Amino acid sequence: MTCAPLERLKVFFPSSVLVKIVFLGTGGSWPSPQRNVLSIALKREKEIILFDCGEGTQRQFMISPLSFMQTKKILISHFHGDHFLGLPGMIQSMTLNDRQDELELYGPEGTTKLVKVLLDLGYFNPGFPVIVNDLEPGSVLDFEAYRIAAYQAKHNVPCLGYCFEEKDRPGRFDLEKAKELGIPEGPLYRKLQSGEDVRVGDKVFTPDMVLGPPRKGRKIVYTGDTLPSPETVRIAQNCDVLIHDATADSSVEEKANRYGHSTAKQAARIAKECNAGVLFLVHISPRYEDATPLLEEAREEFENSIVAEDFMEYEVRFKS
Amino acid sequence: MTCAPLERLKVFFPSSVLVKIVFLGTGGSWPSPQRNVLSIALKREKEIILFDCGEGTQRQFMISPLSFMQTKKILISHFHGDHFLGLPGMIQSMTLNDRQDELELYGPEGTTKLVKVLLDLGYFNPGFPVIVNDLEPGSVLDFEAYRIAAYQAKHNVPCLGYCFEEKDRPGRFDLEKAKELGIPEGPLYRKLQSGEDVRVGDKVFTPDMVLGPPRKGRKIVYTGDTLPSPETVRIAQNCDVLIHDATADSSVEEKANRYGHSTAKQAARIAKECNAGVLFLVHISPRYEDATPLLEEAREEFENSIVAEDFMEYEVRFKS
Repeated sequence: MTCAPLERLKVFFPSSVLVKIVFLGTGGSWPSPQRNVLSIALKREKEIILFDCGEGTQRQFMISPLSFMQTKKILISHFHGDHFLGLPGMIQSMTLNDRQDELELYGPEGTTKLVKVLLDLGYFNPGFPVIVNDLEPGSVLDFEAYRIAAYQAKHNVPCLGYCFEEKDRPGRFDLEKAKELGIPEGPLYRKLQSGEDVRVGDKVFTPDMVLGPPRKGRKIVYTGDTLPSPETVRIAQNCDVLIHDATADSSVEEKANRYGHSTAKQAARIAKECNAGVLFLVHISPRYEDATPLLEEAREEFENSIVAEDFMEYEVRFKS
Repeated sequence: MTCAPLERLKVFFPSSVLVKIVFLGTGGSWPSPQRNVLSIALKREKEIILFDCGEGTQRQFMISPLSFMQTKKILISHFHGDHFLGLPGMIQSMTLNDRQDELELYGPEGTTKLVKVLLDLGYFNPGFPVIVNDLEPGSVLDFEAYRIAAYQAKHNVPCLGYCFEEKDRPGRFDLEKAKELGIPEGPLYRKLQSGEDVRVGDKVFTPDMVLGPPRKGRKIVYTGDTLPSPETVRIAQNCDVLIHDATADSSVEEKANRYGHSTAKQAARIAKECNAGVLFLVHISPRYEDATPLLEEAREEFENSIVAEDFMEYEVRFKS
């Protein structure tokens, strides 16, 4: 007898949408037995958004629990090989596996030109539409449930960081308030929850009468290859997840910085300044078989630091 | 006291040169968790000759006991992505690892043009000379100790098979005969062994007086992607190792053949007609998690058949 109200409640409060990050490649510059080069999958409902696509990404997908065929959007940070050379192979394999759905590709200046070359390598034509767009710092891609903003990373070639942010969800439905107002239980509650006015007799009820304040969506920032930058601090304020370049440890800071990369300590300081929920360190140099020194120096600055490993999964939950 | 003659004998009979095949990628079309796409390393002394270089080959190298930096020559069979898309990443990583030695690249028509494009992808310039040559069926590359002949494979795009063959070694040195002839032991024996005439007093001795018949070098044939073809039978006669396309089993022969591929049974028939020493089946479709059906049908035709697996190593010994 307690089941019925619970069942009905499901209508008013749509079940939470799963957002999961799967690290497909966490190494920098070139691969190692432990780490493939960069690729990070963000799975939201049935869609995968891929950040960077280093060589071998399609095979990392095949070893992971995700299907590469579900990738709808790929965002490339920049055109160093460890970030994009997996594109032609993955697109070819999608074609061989009879993909029909279009694929959206985004990246910094030169993306359209480069992808045209990649799609024409050897004896091959993609069997599905590939839509390509050059972005610039400040570009915002506005989709139904979320936005992705591109911002300027601080690297030695044009490089974009990306901020994925879900749009606000409606506030919580106040069941008691709705009853008090005399709105009959049932389909009208669903309409109010989804933002529509409803009429009962000659009275009109608006959503704001029964809904709490809008609830923030989840925010995930991927920096691409970058020096520590105030732009990251600005963009990634209060993010749930910050995925930051952490190529090396502080003993080689000068060299790392000279090549446009951050140390783990520098990444952690940025995470602290952002008030990030959690920091994942990526683009780990293949010189580290054991990344413990990176983890240790990051945690001195920001306790909730994690060295991302290939195939690590992280579910991003709502703060409230 | 028994050491001295043995020491001297080493001069006359140079220690055998190791030739080893390491299968870096044995899958066809697209990778699977079990198999990467095509790449086969032939290590002879300190040099690696690479046949095909599918996406992810550099990482397969890093997991294998070989160093990708020792690769001196790469021979591409054809320009389907699973055979060449590992080239740009590997060349970029060689540069990042400070390679100075030149790299030789060979492939069918269009190779020079395509490699030019690959070397120009993104922000990159190779830091060492890359020498590229288009080959055609019948081309023979003549190196000091071996030759590599290209021949026409029977695929749906221009595709070359490759026959690696060591040059004949001098015949065995007949120690007794040399003594009978009165040639004093020592440096003269080495000269005769290496093909020079020697003079003792007023007598001239020629190598054929003390050497047995020339001994055959090792012969290894890689077919690339191909239908069963009489050209393979002709080229690969009496080879030590035949590495043959065996994409599928006979139950899907018509489809495999339609796409320019062989079944395991067809590959085994070719090995039998060639009188090959051993047959390795490669380009196994990702649809086979277990390749036992391929092995079984091949062994019905040719007992010494092996399904190549990633990282399998095979030392090629002299027949005599």
